[in-house]
Amino acid sequence: MTEQEVRQPIPIPVLDTAQPRLDEVRLARIALTWLAEPGTRSVHRLASRVGPVEALHRLILGDVPDTKLRAAVRARLAAGDPREIAERAVEHTERLGARVVIPEDDEWPSRVKDLVRLSLAGADRRVDQETAPPLCIWVRGSWPLGEALDRSVAVVGSRAATPYGSHVATEIGYGLADRGWTVVSGGAYGIDAAAHRGALNAGGPTVAVLACGVDRPYPVGNTALFDRIADTGLLVSEWMPGADPLRHRFLIRNRVIAAATVGTVLVEAAARSGATQTTHRALALHRPTMVVPGPVTSAMSIGAHEVLREHPQARLVSGVAHILEEVGRIGADLAPVAQGPQRPRDRLDDEAALILESVPRRGVLGADSLAARAGVDVRTTLRKLSLLEGLGLLIRRDGGYALPPANLTRRGAGSTVGGDER
Amino acid sequence: MTEQEVRQPIPIPVLDTAQPRLDEVRLARIALTWLAEPGTRSVHRLASRVGPVEALHRLILGDVPDTKLRAAVRARLAAGDPREIAERAVEHTERLGARVVIPEDDEWPSRVKDLVRLSLAGADRRVDQETAPPLCIWVRGSWPLGEALDRSVAVVGSRAATPYGSHVATEIGYGLADRGWTVVSGGAYGIDAAAHRGALNAGGPTVAVLACGVDRPYPVGNTALFDRIADTGLLVSEWMPGADPLRHRFLIRNRVIAAATVGTVLVEAAARSGATQTTHRALALHRPTMVVPGPVTSAMSIGAHEVLREHPQARLVSGVAHILEEVGRIGADLAPVAQGPQRPRDRLDDEAALILESVPRRGVLGADSLAARAGVDVRTTLRKLSLLEGLGLLIRRDGGYALPPANLTRRGAGSTVGGDER
Repeated sequence: MTEQEVRQPIPIPVLDTAQPRLDEVRLARIALTWLAEPGTRSVHRLASRVGPVEALHRLILGDVPDTKLRAAVRARLAAGDPREIAERAVEHTERLGARVVIPEDDEWPSRVKDLVRLSLAGADRRVDQETAPPLCIWVRGSWPLGEALDRSVAVVGSRAATPYGSHVATEIGYGLADRGWTVVSGGAYGIDAAAHRGALNAGGPTVAVLACGVDRPYPVGNTALFDRIADTGLLVSEWMPGADPLRHRFLIRNRVIAAATVGTVLVEAAARSGATQTTHRALALHRPTMVVPGPVTSAMSIGAHEVLREHPQARLVSGVAHILEEVGRIGADLAPVAQGPQRPRDRLDDEAALILESVPRRGVLGADSLAARAGVDVRTTLRKLSLLEGLGLLIRRDGGYALPPANLTRRGAGSTVGGDER
Repeated sequence: MTEQEVRQPIPIPVLDTAQPRLDEVRLARIALTWLAEPGTRSVHRLASRVGPVEALHRLILGDVPDTKLRAAVRARLAAGDPREIAERAVEHTERLGARVVIPEDDEWPSRVKDLVRLSLAGADRRVDQETAPPLCIWVRGSWPLGEALDRSVAVVGSRAATPYGSHVATEIGYGLADRGWTVVSGGAYGIDAAAHRGALNAGGPTVAVLACGVDRPYPVGNTALFDRIADTGLLVSEWMPGADPLRHRFLIRNRVIAAATVGTVLVEAAARSGATQTTHRALALHRPTMVVPGPVTSAMSIGAHEVLREHPQARLVSGVAHILEEVGRIGADLAPVAQGPQRPRDRLDDEAALILESVPRRGVLGADSLAARAGVDVRTTLRKLSLLEGLGLLIRRDGGYALPPANLTRRGAGSTVGGDER
């Protein structure tokens, strides 16, 4: 040790320790997401507390109190060095023209942080794995992720969709995209694909959240669709390129679909179907949760109806107008109340309506007889008769009042009851 | 005036005045129901306060404070003497083999008295006419009215029903009758007729509540149906024989369907349709109100969906099981929760499920590799592997583990994801 070394203490790398470089953080997050499946609560908590770099360091050393996590990580470490795997993943991602987005980036979608508050019913399996926010997200497509998800709605449902469900999902996808909303779904067959296609048909971008690497989106039968999505929208995933679409990953992925969007629409789901799971995540996050009903004779709507029956917060929606009412800002995007055509007789007051109803289908009656039939006094009857005449609902004939020929026709054959009233 | 007349004062008919004879009361109620349309609140209030006989007396004399009622009655009186009309109606009713039931009779359906509490939204028209309980009810059929309605459910909907709606209404009518419930409806085309027919097919009695005389049930196209209903069930009406099915009478009638039954089921209704009106009466009476959804692409389900969207108290039902859950006694008639078939893999714990998912679709992997892929420690992995082998979900082969051929088939071609999970 020289004198100078003694006199000049080695500069402590304060900045580096307290604030690791961004690429170091990115690598650590990737390594963590490989060491334990995305969504693992204990890992997310540790990374939030000590930072991703230190969290990775401790996990590799086995320096964590959670014995189950320690054992799981040890088993994973047997397959390779997480830092090397993360570095290779970054290279692979770059070669694909994709990127890894982390919470430290500007384009990180802020809404997913709400997942820290996600608590699931005790009956739910794999609770520890499904609830934490993502540590990082792979993105294929040029649109900034946060911007893409800012005004977004999830449209999800069964893979074994009926023609009805596919039609409705396509309409909803089209309508949302047409109004400037991003349609988010899982890229699966059936409802997911229909929703994505609807959005693309409207020339709107759409986001597919995958349960496997963005380099090999699943299912392969949707490859052409995925290419179209990547062109104008985004393919995103919590798993690194090359990752398989293992079954449990779909359940983990679903929480991101629910958390990243303003609201979730369920179109079709069989009884006890995984398709309702995203809906349950959205409900647990207190996000607008919407369900499209279907025929009660359709097995593919049983799950959808069960959600509506069991969760009063879930709202029945018939189409885009209703969806915009739920997710849109108050005062804008409000659905009009459904109503039939307005007819002159709809504007009649009680007495006028009673008098009109008292006019026989055939033949003529005088004002006195009409007043008696209607139970309205004669003076009022006379006043209302001229009103009805003015509206063209009655004509004067043979010293009395009769229905005009056109009106008679409209009331239908053999009926004294008009329209669909009862 | 003779001496005797002076000494012996005319006996004051104390009993007659305080408690008029039953046939007098019946005649008075019939006359009142003709003088003002059934459901008129002011008439019902007067009859409740001073008795039907005195109420009729005062109305005929014009001795009522309500000027509008007075004028309406005066107009009606021009058409005839209400007492004579009532007497003729009784004779006519007897000739038909029908009867007039009044609240003083044992068979009066007690539930309709709840109508005194019915208050309707201000926007509703003809409020005064639609809200009071009936003054009397004409009945065709031998079953005591009160008994018929004791365990009853109203099934109502659009006249312009779709094949889907008719099918569902028939199924519901059948299922309710099969479980000993009386199906009540309005005898109209479409949903009403389907519900009645379903009940008759199950050999169960059914009740049609008409908006015209029981001698000429409307519509005539349903005459054969009405005859079958009268044979085993009941045709009932608040209007005397010969009365026309005037349009506003259907709206007045609907309150009785809602009030006389334990609950109301709406099957199909167009937007802004009168078919939803009975449902609104049931809601206002705090009766179980149920709605069968349908395809959002069907105009005939728009009204039904609007009821579900606007009234959180209205419950979505898919069939008889759900309906019985609403109207049945607690603990009995409960619908089972919809669920798919149970498979062995549904009973797996988290680790076993993860390990099973890590087994490649083709080829063989050793325990260490599976542990690494699944992120589960090796000791647990070994334990779970023997469990999975025992369940027949895995086989040992070539010194490792593989999926059994049958399991591979069940997971489907080209898929690493089973069932409908996502």
